[in-house]
Amino acid sequence: MSYDNKVRKVVPYTAGEQPKDRTVIKLNTNECPYPPAPGVVSALNAIAADPSVLRLYPDMDATPLVQALSACYHVDPEQIFVGVGSDDVLSMSFLTFFTGGGRLLFPDITYSFYDVWADLYRIPYTAVPLREDFTINPDNYIPSSSAFAAKGEELAGIIFPNPNAPTGAELDLSAIESIVAANPDCVVIVDEAYIDFGGQSALSLIDRYDNLLIVQTFSKSRAMAGMRIGFAMGSRKLIRYLKDVKFSFNSYTMNLPSILVGTAAAEDVAYWKDITSRIVKTREWFEKELQELGYQFPVSKTNFVFAKSPRLSGDVLFKKLRERKIIVRHWDKPRIADYLRITIGTDEQMKAVVDALREIETEA
Amino acid sequence: MSYDNKVRKVVPYTAGEQPKDRTVIKLNTNECPYPPAPGVVSALNAIAADPSVLRLYPDMDATPLVQALSACYHVDPEQIFVGVGSDDVLSMSFLTFFTGGGRLLFPDITYSFYDVWADLYRIPYTAVPLREDFTINPDNYIPSSSAFAAKGEELAGIIFPNPNAPTGAELDLSAIESIVAANPDCVVIVDEAYIDFGGQSALSLIDRYDNLLIVQTFSKSRAMAGMRIGFAMGSRKLIRYLKDVKFSFNSYTMNLPSILVGTAAAEDVAYWKDITSRIVKTREWFEKELQELGYQFPVSKTNFVFAKSPRLSGDVLFKKLRERKIIVRHWDKPRIADYLRITIGTDEQMKAVVDALREIETEA
Repeated sequence: MSYDNKVRKVVPYTAGEQPKDRTVIKLNTNECPYPPAPGVVSALNAIAADPSVLRLYPDMDATPLVQALSACYHVDPEQIFVGVGSDDVLSMSFLTFFTGGGRLLFPDITYSFYDVWADLYRIPYTAVPLREDFTINPDNYIPSSSAFAAKGEELAGIIFPNPNAPTGAELDLSAIESIVAANPDCVVIVDEAYIDFGGQSALSLIDRYDNLLIVQTFSKSRAMAGMRIGFAMGSRKLIRYLKDVKFSFNSYTMNLPSILVGTAAAEDVAYWKDITSRIVKTREWFEKELQELGYQFPVSKTNFVFAKSPRLSGDVLFKKLRERKIIVRHWDKPRIADYLRITIGTDEQMKAVVDALREIETEA
Repeated sequence: MSYDNKVRKVVPYTAGEQPKDRTVIKLNTNECPYPPAPGVVSALNAIAADPSVLRLYPDMDATPLVQALSACYHVDPEQIFVGVGSDDVLSMSFLTFFTGGGRLLFPDITYSFYDVWADLYRIPYTAVPLREDFTINPDNYIPSSSAFAAKGEELAGIIFPNPNAPTGAELDLSAIESIVAANPDCVVIVDEAYIDFGGQSALSLIDRYDNLLIVQTFSKSRAMAGMRIGFAMGSRKLIRYLKDVKFSFNSYTMNLPSILVGTAAAEDVAYWKDITSRIVKTREWFEKELQELGYQFPVSKTNFVFAKSPRLSGDVLFKKLRERKIIVRHWDKPRIADYLRITIGTDEQMKAVVDALREIETEA
C-alpha cells in the first residue's frame, strides 16, 4: 500500500503566461504598465540601511499600512484587514463568513477562484447566470425575487466582483445597495479589485450595512502585483471576525517589506490617481478604436477590455496576436469562448494592439 | 436575524509579546540576535534600482530561491517547495497529506499550531504524551508497538518537530528512520525549524523514503523572521502533490522581495554557518551557567533552552525576569507550567540573563 490514496486531489491552476521574452507585449494578467509610487524606493532603502529589522517577526497588525489605508479611505483602522494579496483576503473571508451553512451565490462568469475556495471549504454554491449582455441581474441575489435563492434554503453568502471580471461591466451602486439591504442574514462581499479605473466603490455603504465587506488590492491600480498586498474594509464587527480567524491559523503572513512598501504606496494618493486616470484615458481611446474595427465589448470600468471580433473566433484571434508577440487572455469556456480579455497597457502598447488587430481583420 | 451565527468561531491566538521598548532584552520568540546575510542588502538595492519589477506578478515557482536551496542542500529543485513562512508550508502540507481519512499523531507537548490546523481541516488527531524527560518515544509512532496507532484505525499521518519545541530535545536519526520506515502508508513530516543549531537533519533519508517531508524556515538560523520564508524538501512525488494543491488555491503568495532576499541568504552558506555556530557556543555557555544555578532542562539542540528553576514556579520567575526587562516565554499548561523557554541571544544578553537569575535565586 502507499499514501497516495490519502492525498488531496485537485485540478491544478493554469496561470496566465509570464513570458521571459522582454520584447513581448504582455497584456494577459491585468498588471499596471507604470512603476509603483516613488516612495516605494525609500521604503526599500530604509530596510537596506538597517537589515537587522528583518531579524524580528513582523507586526501582526501591519499597523503603518493599516494607518495609511485609514487616512486614504477615511475609514477607521478597526475597519481594515490586510492580507497577502486579495486572494488571501478573499480565501480567509470565505472561511470566516461562508462556512456556517447554506448556499453561496456568485455569477457564472466571474473570477475563477470563487468556486475553488467554495470547494476547498466545502461550501455549496450556485453560479448565477449573467444576463445576455454580461451584466449582473441584481434580482437574482434578492431572496424575494430570486430563482436561485428562494428555494427555502438559507444563503451562506454572496460574492461578486464589481466591476466584474473578466467582463469589465459595472453594477451600479443602487443595485448593490439593494442586494446588501435584502440580505442582512448573510455577508455580502464586493470584490473591488478593479474599482479604481472609473467604477463607483460601495465603500460609502459600510457604515450603514454591517454585513458588507469590500475587498481591494495593490496589484492593479497601485502597480504592485509583485508585492502581494490585498485588503478588506467593513464594519468593525466583520473585521474583528476576520482577524480572529486569520490570527488563529497563521499569525505572521505579511512580511516587513510588504508592510513598509505598501504604506509608501498607500500614502501617495496623487501618484495613484495619476496613473489610474492615465489608464482610463488609454482605455477610452482603445475602446473607440475597437468600435471602429467592429468589435463588441461591455463598456469597461477596469484596466482591461473584454472584446469579441466581428469575424474571428477567440481562439484564432488569440493565436494571431500571439504570433505578433502580443499576449492576451482567452478562456475556452461556454458563452465567452469568442472573447479576449486585453489588459490596458501604455498608449504605445495599445497602438501596437490596434495596428495588429487592423492587420488581422483585413487579412480575415 | 443576523449573520453572526454563521461566522466561524475560533480561539484567537496569543502571540509572543513584541515590545516597542528597545531596552528590553527580547528572548521570547526565538529570533536570531544577528543580522541577516550581507547579500540581503544587495537584493533589496536591486529592487530599489528598478522598482518597475514590482508591477508584475512574482514567479509562482520562486525559481532563484529554489535553485539556491537546491545548491545549498544538494537536493534537486523538483524536491523543494517554498512558502510564506514554515507555517504556510505546514498548513498546506496538512491540507494536502492529512485530510484523506484516519488519525493524525503528534506529541502532546509541541508546536502550538498542529492542533489548530488539524481542527481547521477537520483531521481527527491524538496528542501522544512525551516521556517524563520530555523526549519522544518512537515506539508510540510505530503501528505494531503503539498504544495510540494500533486500534485498527488507519493513520492520517505523523508530524513532530525535531528538535522538539518548546522542549529543545532531539530525537536521533535512527529513531526517525524507524518511524518513517514503519509508516509507508502515510506521510511523516519532520518539522526542522530548529535543526541548524546542532541537531542532525533527516534530509539524508528523503531519497530512500518517499513518504518523508522535511520542513525548515528562514526565521531562526537565517535571521529573517521578518521575511516569512519557509520550505519543504521531500520526494519529487510529495513535492508535486504539494505544489498542485497550493497552486490550485492561491498561486502567488511569495512576493518578489522574499524570493530575491531569500536567494541571497540561501547562497551565503559561510555566514549562515558562522552565526549558527556562534549561537551554539553561547547556548553551551548558558547551559553550564544554568546547571551551576541548579536549573533543570533537556539538553538543547536549538536556539533556546527550556529550563526550570530549583526553587521558583515558572509564573513567578517569568514575572521577576519581566521586572528586570527580560522577556522570555511561559505557558500556563500542565507538565510545563514550571518551565521557561529562553531564546539564546548574544553573549552579552545571556550574561545579563544569568546575572538576573543569580540575583533572583539568591533573593528566593
